[in-house]
Amino acid sequence: MNLTELPFTIDALREAYRAGLRPEQVIAEAFRRLDAVGDAGIFIHAARENALAEAKALGEPDGRPLWGIPFAAKDNIDVAGMPTTAACPDFAYAPDADAFVVARLRAAGAICLGKTNLDQFATGLVGVRTPYPVPKNALDPAIVPGGSSSGSAVAVAHGIASFALGTDTAGSGRVPAALNSLVGLKPTLGALSATGVVPACRTLDTISIFALTVADAWTALEAAAAPDSADAYSRPIAVPALTAPPPSLRIGVPNAASLVTFGDTVQANDFRATVADLAKGGATIVEMDLEPFFAVARMLYEGAWLAERVAAVGDRLIEKPDTLHPTTRAILEPGLALTAADAFRGFYQLKDRAAVCRKALAGIDALCVPSIPAFVTLDEIAADPIGPNSRLGTYTNFANLLDLCGIAVPTGPRADGRPGGVTLLAAKGRDALCAAIAAGLEAGPLGATGWTRPDASLPDAERPTGDEIAIAVCG
Amino acid sequence: MNLTELPFTIDALREAYRAGLRPEQVIAEAFRRLDAVGDAGIFIHAARENALAEAKALGEPDGRPLWGIPFAAKDNIDVAGMPTTAACPDFAYAPDADAFVVARLRAAGAICLGKTNLDQFATGLVGVRTPYPVPKNALDPAIVPGGSSSGSAVAVAHGIASFALGTDTAGSGRVPAALNSLVGLKPTLGALSATGVVPACRTLDTISIFALTVADAWTALEAAAAPDSADAYSRPIAVPALTAPPPSLRIGVPNAASLVTFGDTVQANDFRATVADLAKGGATIVEMDLEPFFAVARMLYEGAWLAERVAAVGDRLIEKPDTLHPTTRAILEPGLALTAADAFRGFYQLKDRAAVCRKALAGIDALCVPSIPAFVTLDEIAADPIGPNSRLGTYTNFANLLDLCGIAVPTGPRADGRPGGVTLLAAKGRDALCAAIAAGLEAGPLGATGWTRPDASLPDAERPTGDEIAIAVCG
Repeated sequence: MNLTELPFTIDALREAYRAGLRPEQVIAEAFRRLDAVGDAGIFIHAARENALAEAKALGEPDGRPLWGIPFAAKDNIDVAGMPTTAACPDFAYAPDADAFVVARLRAAGAICLGKTNLDQFATGLVGVRTPYPVPKNALDPAIVPGGSSSGSAVAVAHGIASFALGTDTAGSGRVPAALNSLVGLKPTLGALSATGVVPACRTLDTISIFALTVADAWTALEAAAAPDSADAYSRPIAVPALTAPPPSLRIGVPNAASLVTFGDTVQANDFRATVADLAKGGATIVEMDLEPFFAVARMLYEGAWLAERVAAVGDRLIEKPDTLHPTTRAILEPGLALTAADAFRGFYQLKDRAAVCRKALAGIDALCVPSIPAFVTLDEIAADPIGPNSRLGTYTNFANLLDLCGIAVPTGPRADGRPGGVTLLAAKGRDALCAAIAAGLEAGPLGATGWTRPDASLPDAERPTGDEIAIAVCG
Repeated sequence: MNLTELPFTIDALREAYRAGLRPEQVIAEAFRRLDAVGDAGIFIHAARENALAEAKALGEPDGRPLWGIPFAAKDNIDVAGMPTTAACPDFAYAPDADAFVVARLRAAGAICLGKTNLDQFATGLVGVRTPYPVPKNALDPAIVPGGSSSGSAVAVAHGIASFALGTDTAGSGRVPAALNSLVGLKPTLGALSATGVVPACRTLDTISIFALTVADAWTALEAAAAPDSADAYSRPIAVPALTAPPPSLRIGVPNAASLVTFGDTVQANDFRATVADLAKGGATIVEMDLEPFFAVARMLYEGAWLAERVAAVGDRLIEKPDTLHPTTRAILEPGLALTAADAFRGFYQLKDRAAVCRKALAGIDALCVPSIPAFVTLDEIAADPIGPNSRLGTYTNFANLLDLCGIAVPTGPRADGRPGGVTLLAAKGRDALCAAIAAGLEAGPLGATGWTRPDASLPDAERPTGDEIAIAVCG
């Protein structure tokens, strides 16, 4: 196979390496692809020489799970030797050390291609709130790339990086996946250490993973996830090998009134078709009123948690507001007026609303929702920088406030050719269940690559043993 | 036995009822004792007629666990038909319904004698921050009664009520117990519903129970504890029948540097004697540096959580500050200046500090500390209304911020005759373990009553079965 046609899925690369391909060839090809795409907005810092040198230094294949796999990191995640900007040039600093997760990925053999563009300080779901060139959506230059992890998503969608790190507070790891026909894995809060990550809402942030397939996202998660004693929000979360989900699942879906698509009937029909597939696969579909979830979602930018973003940006908002993107500044400034008492009132309200949601979730194994309610064009966001952004968070904003894990997965083109996709959400720690369900649904193009989607079937879970060993008793 | 000499411990009352005593006689005797004590500061609302009528209406003994048992409720807990003041007359309202916990106690047959005095809005550990007459310490009128649950503690210490409800955010359910030779049970947050309770710090508040013995406190807890769907902070906490603790416990105690007694060497020696008793009983003593716990404790009044009290008191602090006790007002006012961003910075700091404490706690079954570092006199608190109050919280302020359960228990008179006592603390849900250890230590006077302490020995736990059934396999 010609190198220019080689899929950068992890299995395809592993096979090519077994056949003698060199990592430095892969890195060179990655940057050739970047140049061919010609989108100056994807990377804020492309680490061409550094990545090539690392590739050469890898030596011979050594069995490490990510040996020679190229990845990109959102530029609010530290990589030693590269500046961290959070898309705010005045904020830039030179980190001494890799973020905990980056260090784990590199220890597993992965090679970092560089730092990708984002909505400034990870505030946004559109990808246009950056002083750098706006990355182009990999599938349709008229629609927004999605954010805040815009560059990471586009880099993977073009097959430049095998996977990329994003972060996800409001949906920044799922919305860009949906807009670029990718998998966007947002693990349970605390599964991926935040050490070396610029906070947005520290209590609600997580690193996320973009990949072309569920399997690749999961492989990256397996390497990246580990408890980190330096991050008080780190929690041990199980990341077992994926197996097929149990046959009889109860999947919650929005009822008719909750299926919000802002008039996009194609999206509504596409979602219903996916639900029909789930039912055909044996799942029990539970129609749910999502209004309690939407009520939680609204709290992310309307109350206490806005102040958490203010706490993250710090004195800059007061002392150097001109260094902020105008939209970011406009969003954050009301947070300055919130009092600590307001914050507590917000927590009480969330606690009450979360109790209602928890009750609804108790009856299901996972929740399946559209990843986005509708697409947003660059023209729409130019005309109104905030409204369409807010709408993109319809099905994502509530997840971290409710301590859910989630994974956005492409389900194949909609009737109009745009990428269809859903997100599986479940209670904390059920990451593997969500990923397994997603693997049963993933379909359609691998981003913008044109590569053939590999078989995603999962092995059956081993039958439980131990307690159920039959013992012959005689006497 | 003469009724005036009848101990109001629950077992003694049950026995007297079996022998034919009537609840209305007990209620009359309770108020006779109150009159004999002659302390107008204990009750804000004494419900003489109401309690008598309820007693008469009880009919014949019916086996309910608290049938005919008199109790008092701190006046920040609603009892239908009685005003709730939180010790702020201008705040007073007439609740339509009993607080959830009060309703459960009454459903179990208990009779409410009235509403007791407190540090206004439950802010304080001294009991003197009230516009009503200050209740007198039941043992020594020169020392503070302790707060904020002052009246509840003093009512039990004089044998007027068999048990009393307090609340405990910073130590309001433990400090007054220590100052009046009582048991003060502060359950795991969420075990006792907050429905119908005036909040102090809603995320850190719990109802607490004062009683003369561990057994009586536990009996009241068994009746009161239940999940409450109306309180989003309610959690199901196990309240099993108490059994003797496992023989080989690891008990953490402050190391020499952490044994803070502000120069009270009698207190330090008394505590060391209790630790020696624990060791003699078979426990492994683990000396710990408590500075990380003290660092958490300081956060309760120095940061974000002060604003939570402001949120609870609401606009009163701005619009009607003259309706507040001057000390309460002075404590709360700085909370008005705290921003929501300050609050989040406080949470991050707590998360970091709590991680250090959790690590320390992982190596022990429970922590044993002095309940108070030293006694505080009325003169001292008159000279400085805040400093001595803060010192009283040395060993209590951190408990709810760290989600620990706790129980203060008298251990008998110190060398100078003042009540000695310790508090057992442990991770959430270990309420029964703490109570069982406390039952092994309780000693000395039952408050100020002069009654003989009943035997507190607990039955052994049943040996585990099920998993360990021996199966004979042959073939």
